Amino acid sequence: MPTAIAADSVGLVSPRVAQFTAPLELACGRTLTDYQLIYETYGTLNPERSNAVLICHALSGHHHAAGYHSLDERKPGWWDSCIGPGKPIDTSRFFVVSLNNLGGCNGSTGPNTVDPATGKPYGADFPMVTVEDWVNSQARLADRLGIEQWAAVIGGSLGGMQALHWSIGYPERIRHCLAIASAPRLSAQNIAFNEVARQAILSDTDYPEGIPKRGLMLARMVGHITYLSDDAMGTKFGRDLKNDKLNYDFNSVEFQVESYLRYQGEEFSGRFDANTYLLMTKALDYFELGDLAKASADFCLMSFTTDWRFSPARSREIVQALVAARKNVSYVEIDAPQGHDAFLLPIPRYLQALHNYLKRIEV
Amino acid sequence: MPTAIAADSVGLVSPRVAQFTAPLELACGRTLTDYQLIYETYGTLNPERSNAVLICHALSGHHHAAGYHSLDERKPGWWDSCIGPGKPIDTSRFFVVSLNNLGGCNGSTGPNTVDPATGKPYGADFPMVTVEDWVNSQARLADRLGIEQWAAVIGGSLGGMQALHWSIGYPERIRHCLAIASAPRLSAQNIAFNEVARQAILSDTDYPEGIPKRGLMLARMVGHITYLSDDAMGTKFGRDLKNDKLNYDFNSVEFQVESYLRYQGEEFSGRFDANTYLLMTKALDYFELGDLAKASADFCLMSFTTDWRFSPARSREIVQALVAARKNVSYVEIDAPQGHDAFLLPIPRYLQALHNYLKRIEV
Repeated sequence: MPTAIAADSVGLVSPRVAQFTAPLELACGRTLTDYQLIYETYGTLNPERSNAVLICHALSGHHHAAGYHSLDERKPGWWDSCIGPGKPIDTSRFFVVSLNNLGGCNGSTGPNTVDPATGKPYGADFPMVTVEDWVNSQARLADRLGIEQWAAVIGGSLGGMQALHWSIGYPERIRHCLAIASAPRLSAQNIAFNEVARQAILSDTDYPEGIPKRGLMLARMVGHITYLSDDAMGTKFGRDLKNDKLNYDFNSVEFQVESYLRYQGEEFSGRFDANTYLLMTKALDYFELGDLAKASADFCLMSFTTDWRFSPARSREIVQALVAARKNVSYVEIDAPQGHDAFLLPIPRYLQALHNYLKRIEV
Repeated sequence: MPTAIAADSVGLVSPRVAQFTAPLELACGRTLTDYQLIYETYGTLNPERSNAVLICHALSGHHHAAGYHSLDERKPGWWDSCIGPGKPIDTSRFFVVSLNNLGGCNGSTGPNTVDPATGKPYGADFPMVTVEDWVNSQARLADRLGIEQWAAVIGGSLGGMQALHWSIGYPERIRHCLAIASAPRLSAQNIAFNEVARQAILSDTDYPEGIPKRGLMLARMVGHITYLSDDAMGTKFGRDLKNDKLNYDFNSVEFQVESYLRYQGEEFSGRFDANTYLLMTKALDYFELGDLAKASADFCLMSFTTDWRFSPARSREIVQALVAARKNVSYVEIDAPQGHDAFLLPIPRYLQALHNYLKRIEV
């Protein structure tokens, strides 16, 4: 709980739900006949409707990107360091929209929603959703909110892939595309890590009937290793022991890094949905950056030096493709030891770079 | 099955077993009252007993390093590319000894052995074994074979740690220490990957009573990702699809890299013991390179450019420590795209470097 809400916070916020009844055809060939999207907004849409910014979330993200749902909330939204009055995504200038994607487990239609065809939750039968599907659903949300064109679409990691696809799927509806710590497509190694996470869930004997807590825990542990840099783990944990001695058994926690991973895994397995996790990894695997010739937005790419999940080289691939397609592109490589996780952290040079780009956007 | 055994093969070989009845005190505080080691030898011990070379195996290795057990054997021993007449570890000059370590599952005393105290297999209760314990047991095997001093002790990865410890634990008994693709101690990230593998096994509902095939499969899949370089995976699999189309479901194999990983995982889970896997990962985690001031051997360190499990930087740490301790040390960094796996592969520059070092050893 915040003792007092800071002046640069968006403050108390409430999510809203938008219901859609027009069928949404998905890339997989199936159709969602009706669905809902949960979202939050921060700031005010100007009369010209020219100051709207869309935030796209990554694998385990959701709509609650900034502010507090109540004074009892321990932590603000996941990107609170970036969104607020005077912050890089400045809510005194921009009207910010943040949603939970289809297939999610935080309030938008997903595996826990009742399938109208069966009267039971979709569960493992929820249709596969792709980055393209998400962007299509986000475009309908924009229609609903009266937003013809986004001043910017911004996302990190899987969120960056959505921002990139907006520039190709709806070129006339996006002026600036900001893709942070992202990639034009997954590498074989990226897919391999996702496959381990999926197999951990799918092979859990509690799946699909019950909650595969063990599988989700393993999936999150593997994920966490790829979110942190080798250096960051070394600095944070090194070979420190939890109890200053070796126990010579398998079950006790010996090294601090084991303690950290188990905690992260257990905490996650208690709050996240396994089918959503499976869906998100598949959306990542399937993504392929399309033909940039169609794009008319200006682009801003950012990467972090120690990110080995989506390394600077992956962002530079996108930059090269944009240059080859003769698009306007800015690229910032930020020296940061935190690995892929850096895109979520309040790193001064990163926030400054975001601020510098966004302040030049006319609304 | 080889159609004909090549002239530079050690040919048909048979393992032997050495029984030990003197109690072996282990680092964990427990004692093995009696135990056996399975081993193979290639070449002939010279009358001066000065040409013996010890091969130390890595995580999933064993005693069968070269040649064939029968003409029906599909593949030769795991390091057949390096061991044989005229090969880098030249059996026309050297008497080569290769054993399965304590705690193994290939014939030496380990979790599948009957515990004399209970009359039942040790299983999960097999005592924790460390690199130091292995070296002590290997010294007893040397005694049994009448080998006072090794011309060389050679190993890759976890095997390299054993070679390094020989130089400190028994400085008078080793003339040359060759540690390939190794490290002075695991990093936090290394431990983290081991911890995921252990949790995969320990959380499998079939463990410890039955065979945790799902857990072993996951452990091996994670391991395999760390054995291969990002580049090697990219070159070998890229984003190639198994059936030229996406299926949009979780269970079918879509990308070739998924197919490869599942195959490797399943094959391994059918042949390897889960408790041995747990023991080997702990031996890795526990290892810390000791005080090199005690060493009197000459050293040869090798690493591979794309190895990110034990990167060249980790080998250079050892080289620096050896230089600081004023030891004779050669260091070769081999440009190879295969990642950590390179140490097991017949890479011409690597074999040549090994050959060059070993041919100068006087016997």
